[in-house]
Amino acid sequence: MLTLKSVLTFRSAAKEGLRGPEKLLERYKSVRRQTELLTAHLSPEDQMVQSCPEASPTKWHLAHTSWFFETFLLSQNLKSYRPFHPQFRSLFNSYYNGVGPQPDKTLRSTFSRPSLEEVQKYRRHTDEHMHKLLDSGGLSEAALTLIELGLNHEQQHQELLVTDIKHAFWINPLRPVYQSGAVQRTGKGSAPSQRPHAYEEGVFEMGADDAGFHFDNEAPRHKAYLQAFRFAARPVTCGEYLAFMEDSGYSRPELWLSDGWNAVKARGWSAPLYWEKVGSEWQQFTCAGMRKLEEDEPVCHVSYYEADAFARWAGARLPSEFEWELVASRTKVQGNLLESGSFHPAIAASTDDDQPAQIFGDVWEWTTSGYLPYPGFKPASGALGEYNGKFMVNQMVLRGGSCVTPATHIRASYRNFFTPETRWQFSGIRLADDNL
Amino acid sequence: MLTLKSVLTFRSAAKEGLRGPEKLLERYKSVRRQTELLTAHLSPEDQMVQSCPEASPTKWHLAHTSWFFETFLLSQNLKSYRPFHPQFRSLFNSYYNGVGPQPDKTLRSTFSRPSLEEVQKYRRHTDEHMHKLLDSGGLSEAALTLIELGLNHEQQHQELLVTDIKHAFWINPLRPVYQSGAVQRTGKGSAPSQRPHAYEEGVFEMGADDAGFHFDNEAPRHKAYLQAFRFAARPVTCGEYLAFMEDSGYSRPELWLSDGWNAVKARGWSAPLYWEKVGSEWQQFTCAGMRKLEEDEPVCHVSYYEADAFARWAGARLPSEFEWELVASRTKVQGNLLESGSFHPAIAASTDDDQPAQIFGDVWEWTTSGYLPYPGFKPASGALGEYNGKFMVNQMVLRGGSCVTPATHIRASYRNFFTPETRWQFSGIRLADDNL
Amino acid sequence: MLTLKSVLTFRSAAKEGLRGPEKLLERYKSVRRQTELLTAHLSPEDQMVQSCPEASPTKWHLAHTSWFFETFLLSQNLKSYRPFHPQFRSLFNSYYNGVGPQPDKTLRSTFSRPSLEEVQKYRRHTDEHMHKLLDSGGLSEAALTLIELGLNHEQQHQELLVTDIKHAFWINPLRPVYQSGAVQRTGKGSAPSQRPHAYEEGVFEMGADDAGFHFDNEAPRHKAYLQAFRFAARPVTCGEYLAFMEDSGYSRPELWLSDGWNAVKARGWSAPLYWEKVGSEWQQFTCAGMRKLEEDEPVCHVSYYEADAFARWAGARLPSEFEWELVASRTKVQGNLLESGSFHPAIAASTDDDQPAQIFGDVWEWTTSGYLPYPGFKPASGALGEYNGKFMVNQMVLRGGSCVTPATHIRASYRNFFTPETRWQFSGIRLADDNL
Amino acid sequence: MLTLKSVLTFRSAAKEGLRGPEKLLERYKSVRRQTELLTAHLSPEDQMVQSCPEASPTKWHLAHTSWFFETFLLSQNLKSYRPFHPQFRSLFNSYYNGVGPQPDKTLRSTFSRPSLEEVQKYRRHTDEHMHKLLDSGGLSEAALTLIELGLNHEQQHQELLVTDIKHAFWINPLRPVYQSGAVQRTGKGSAPSQRPHAYEEGVFEMGADDAGFHFDNEAPRHKAYLQAFRFAARPVTCGEYLAFMEDSGYSRPELWLSDGWNAVKARGWSAPLYWEKVGSEWQQFTCAGMRKLEEDEPVCHVSYYEADAFARWAGARLPSEFEWELVASRTKVQGNLLESGSFHPAIAASTDDDQPAQIFGDVWEWTTSGYLPYPGFKPASGALGEYNGKFMVNQMVLRGGSCVTPATHIRASYRNFFTPETRWQFSGIRLADDNL
Repeated sequence: MLTLKSVLTFRSAAKEGLRGPEKLLERYKSVRRQTELLTAHLSPEDQMVQSCPEASPTKWHLAHTSWFFETFLLSQNLKSYRPFHPQFRSLFNSYYNGVGPQPDKTLRSTFSRPSLEEVQKYRRHTDEHMHKLLDSGGLSEAALTLIELGLNHEQQHQELLVTDIKHAFWINPLRPVYQSGAVQRTGKGSAPSQRPHAYEEGVFEMGADDAGFHFDNEAPRHKAYLQAFRFAARPVTCGEYLAFMEDSGYSRPELWLSDGWNAVKARGWSAPLYWEKVGSEWQQFTCAGMRKLEEDEPVCHVSYYEADAFARWAGARLPSEFEWELVASRTKVQGNLLESGSFHPAIAASTDDDQPAQIFGDVWEWTTSGYLPYPGFKPASGALGEYNGKFMVNQMVLRGGSCVTPATHIRASYRNFFTPETRWQFSGIRLADDNL
Repeated sequence: MLTLKSVLTFRSAAKEGLRGPEKLLERYKSVRRQTELLTAHLSPEDQMVQSCPEASPTKWHLAHTSWFFETFLLSQNLKSYRPFHPQFRSLFNSYYNGVGPQPDKTLRSTFSRPSLEEVQKYRRHTDEHMHKLLDSGGLSEAALTLIELGLNHEQQHQELLVTDIKHAFWINPLRPVYQSGAVQRTGKGSAPSQRPHAYEEGVFEMGADDAGFHFDNEAPRHKAYLQAFRFAARPVTCGEYLAFMEDSGYSRPELWLSDGWNAVKARGWSAPLYWEKVGSEWQQFTCAGMRKLEEDEPVCHVSYYEADAFARWAGARLPSEFEWELVASRTKVQGNLLESGSFHPAIAASTDDDQPAQIFGDVWEWTTSGYLPYPGFKPASGALGEYNGKFMVNQMVLRGGSCVTPATHIRASYRNFFTPETRWQFSGIRLADDNL
Repeated sequence: MLTLKSVLTFRSAAKEGLRGPEKLLERYKSVRRQTELLTAHLSPEDQMVQSCPEASPTKWHLAHTSWFFETFLLSQNLKSYRPFHPQFRSLFNSYYNGVGPQPDKTLRSTFSRPSLEEVQKYRRHTDEHMHKLLDSGGLSEAALTLIELGLNHEQQHQELLVTDIKHAFWINPLRPVYQSGAVQRTGKGSAPSQRPHAYEEGVFEMGADDAGFHFDNEAPRHKAYLQAFRFAARPVTCGEYLAFMEDSGYSRPELWLSDGWNAVKARGWSAPLYWEKVGSEWQQFTCAGMRKLEEDEPVCHVSYYEADAFARWAGARLPSEFEWELVASRTKVQGNLLESGSFHPAIAASTDDDQPAQIFGDVWEWTTSGYLPYPGFKPASGALGEYNGKFMVNQMVLRGGSCVTPATHIRASYRNFFTPETRWQFSGIRLADDNL
Repeated sequence: MLTLKSVLTFRSAAKEGLRGPEKLLERYKSVRRQTELLTAHLSPEDQMVQSCPEASPTKWHLAHTSWFFETFLLSQNLKSYRPFHPQFRSLFNSYYNGVGPQPDKTLRSTFSRPSLEEVQKYRRHTDEHMHKLLDSGGLSEAALTLIELGLNHEQQHQELLVTDIKHAFWINPLRPVYQSGAVQRTGKGSAPSQRPHAYEEGVFEMGADDAGFHFDNEAPRHKAYLQAFRFAARPVTCGEYLAFMEDSGYSRPELWLSDGWNAVKARGWSAPLYWEKVGSEWQQFTCAGMRKLEEDEPVCHVSYYEADAFARWAGARLPSEFEWELVASRTKVQGNLLESGSFHPAIAASTDDDQPAQIFGDVWEWTTSGYLPYPGFKPASGALGEYNGKFMVNQMVLRGGSCVTPATHIRASYRNFFTPETRWQFSGIRLADDNL
């Protein structure tokens, strides 16, 4: 079983600030260990499940993150290296056409072999050689960057694997529990007011600077003009969302984008994902199982369409990704993230601060911005250019991370992206409006 | 038969500049007459065809444009008015939930009744009462704006009906001809150089000002920051696109967005829509039937995915909608538009000018901009708020109009929008790049 | 308008018994004229509609039946013959791979060209040359049989075109009327009792003998063993079907085949096709428009699944095709058929006769027999072998003809066949059970 | 690992002929043990895979067969019995609406819980109580029949689980081996001649008599008339099927049923399932992994459409189920069945006998008979009436069992049934023709 204590271990480690390239080996070990802590209590069978098209089996996440180091680091930088298994290069390729062919994503749940035990060997094999590589010294700047990328890649899959197993357990009528100690540790009390913070118009620098790691899609840093706007002090709560539902929110086409309305009808949506009415009580499936809906917690697992319809109903709108980034760039990176071990959004603390609350963690915040290249965007050369660039169409940007995002993985310039009907993510709603 | 002469008539009328509200009746007659000229030579059967999900039957266009005036003008502003037929309010409603229910779009081809003759009576009935309304004087500003909107709405459907009938005739193995005199009148000679024009960075005002008619999605006018960029002197030609094809453009995943590559495989694309290889010769279906491909003409009927892949292959990119608008705002609104009667993009004239050529007309130009609300966007109240606003997701912006866009309908701030796999439009490719 | 009188004309002609090969020309003229009478009052637009996958446009029926004579008779037996149009051989080919490629069935509604006028010319051209061929004398036995086949083929399409236009008009919210004088002429009064007729077990000869025309799928005549059974005196009525509905027939899975139950849920069936509840009254769409449901009329437009579920609910079963044929072989071929001009099933007359009533006409009767080859079945050689044989899987046999089947087209050995979810046909329910 | 020895154990047991109700406990233990032997060497992960819509995970088979005894026997006949888990009644219900709701079949692969270990406990719990029930004595005739049914049900799932795991392993690019010792033990040498055996026409009794266990769909025994026919001495071999392929069998529409031809095009079939051309060599996936195609072995894993097309190409046809049963009723029940441990069809021995060879075992033989009720068919009352009866439409009958059918499970009257496009079964081709 994953104990709360073991989760907290990594949080402490993170606090010590292992950032420099000289401490890369230590960080490598931390990140890899975090992955194993998150999955150690899942059975070989649990790790086979793929319960929706967006998800992958846990075991696949374990293997694919090793594949990343093997394919992009070890095979190219460690002379003596021989791949763990000749077919894994293809078997655990997610979508890199530059690396070669890959199995259809829907087949991942059929790969009983390699067994979980074999995949764990694959991880140890990878670790052993990565340790050797990191110990060897004299790594090029490019190689160091690739290792940094591999660690961030693995952190993305940490978030995904928790997100995926939550869905897998929800699909099962037995409703297994991922982490029995989780969730309860979220805050208590009433959600504070949503009163907006105002921001002046002007030209602002947006995107990642070169101070730390960032993905290619966060660059280049560039100027953007923002109109004056207001930004809500905290995300929308379940209680506020209930008011929308009770005001016939899911039955009024005038509140919805056309594609959103079609989605409501085709998919029969009448509440966020994981909400279920049991008798007269609304309940919610969490990583700790079913429990009573907490009205003061941020609403979660809503699509862009629902976020947009709620905002219209509320007489507001969603923020753009640049509005969001301007606010976040003035906010400290802290919050209810993966290391809190809660795996669930928490009630906001007081919002009397001079900054909006819950910018980082709790729920990803849908923005009105399409996921498109920044001016001057250049994807990496080779197969890694496929990491982000080829998805720059048909998706919306989300910002800020969620309660299952690792703390060292999120930052003000971080761009997440999903298609607008996506609900299996820990995605919520931040309101904004024009400051007229 | 629609003769060239009759098409040209409206062009002359347009030249006289019928813009003011006092000349609205004259403009009303012109626009309505143009619709009838474009359809007069199509049989009742031709006007029934709906050959792809994007298209509608010609007869439906004729009825729906009258429905617009009846529903939004006559029923509300002419006291004595009684609807032509009690069921038409629902039957010819396209997508306005605020007006009431509407038939599924795919059923439009099954409505043999009302007959074409009946629909023509409906148009005359509408015209008669619109004349009365316009003659009555004392129309409110709001009503005048609605009439203006109705005329622009009808012009959109003029473009659509030609686009749709082209597809309808292409699906038919007999390959009927829409306009035998068309197409040949396009320019001759060689396409001039693509040499780019350079633009400086800065803050620019974008969107429609209040000087003339514009749709709600073009407003409000607002500031945007543009980086320095370069803009091709003319659209990409068929010959240039052939070079992409011959360089295995449709077989190299690294050139494509992920969704684009999936579209290529799922739909079996290997050339633009309407291109067919007959023996060793590339041919193209046009409004004048099949003819040899002209390498110097702008390439047309490509999806966003194809435009994007071509640009990547060419070492360039597509422009953003604001880059496009900056260029266009310095360019006179003229070009190969509907009134030229060619219904086909023409070879560009010399590009020695100080402005890029073929900004307006010929082909709609795909931009990298998602179709999203401008800062401060407010849709109209009531059902007309559904005109544009509810489609602001999952679509890309196109700019500039095409060879089937009415001349008085296009302007620098005009935003057209389609999903990225759309090919039945007269859509082409303008290259741009960063000016580094 | 098609008047009742003109429909009756052919009935008189049929009565004169034009059966022998010497009268083939006369019969040819009669059958062709009947087709034209059935369609004369439909506009060019009506004749374009294809409102469900099973249906074809009227104009296509007109052309395809001529295509049959052109392709199989004129092109092969009339030396001087030149096809009316070089592309029609492909354009109007339904499904004969032996003749060559054919357009996808769903495209038939897009063929505005050839126009109805052109198709009528095609029919006259065909008729002229068929008259010449028939006048020429000395036709081989094979050619005479082919002409007979062509006439039966055209009669099948007479039935189909009425069936199809009924559906086309029902889809249209304006609910046009095919034949305003129709329907009312159905019988009045109460439906008589269903009391069963008993039949002894034994070996019986089944299938067509060589006395008259028959399709290949009715042969060879062969022996079959039937157990003792009972056969209902008349088809199930709308009132009886209502009782099934009121007894939750559509909500009880135990009454349905598994595939049937899936169809009920997936398609949302809760009543036969064309039934609509208006306020508290059940109405039914007919060839004369919407009218109140008549409880004593035979229920019509039900799928095999519904017929089977009803029979299970009633404690009975459907008959096998051989049980049906045994009964029919002892019954005179007469009934409410196309020539009655009613286009709607009629209330049964008294069933005091020694034979079950309404064996021929009114409604096709679903049987429990899969559409499979008879022992010793040999399809015709060449493309005409595709007429029936290649469909012998996944379909159920129906027997007896309906109110839109031509009288000279039906017989005891006639096998119709549709997939079990089909409802657009005039298909009803005859009960049977084991005589234990 | 499942050793050959352990498989053979049950064969010995079967030889001792444990048929009478007094030996039911011994048979119960044998059958249950056989299931465990077949699955003992599969990992918890292997037992999760569901690689095609027809298949279920091994673990599900293990649980569902226990569910059958729990639901239909223990819950109703053992007073003290308490269900192992309150949700299993619903979770492991396959399709019995009479028992209650059931999860969608496609979700079976997502049920990581209960774990394999828990399911094995469920089996032991069931066994313990079934032993108690069987020991208790005084079981009603109905209960004894239900136990017999439960054992036959479990044997069906033994066959299915091997069939399913073969597919699961084939989908995995690593191509795991189910049973390394298998397959090689199939016969060697050349396939003997196909020379047909002739049968006279006449009235024959068909269906199960009351001498032993049979499913409801095999009854009642009844008379049928058969025409004279001939029946091939053995099934079609891979070599013969290759000749069909090399004669463009998959490219000639005239050889195929219409639905079959559509399946060939839509699914891209060009060889039986599990055949792969590696270089110039045809290989075949088996339960022992990939191996060279053996031309003398019976062809296997073909759909009804392929069997039908092959027969047409060969100038023959498939037999009806009654022709097959007439032949089988004169043949001893023996052959290459599950207990041979080969899991693969074998080369036929000499066919000089007076009976056709390989009637039982090796490959299921497609027949021309639709799966429909026999005259007088009565399904069992209650939920068990859903076992067979509700599937009697849209499927074709197969006869004779295959190399993965338990020996005590097959008989001359046994009717298997699948939709005509099914290929994952061990299904092959027996030719027949009319004896003219």
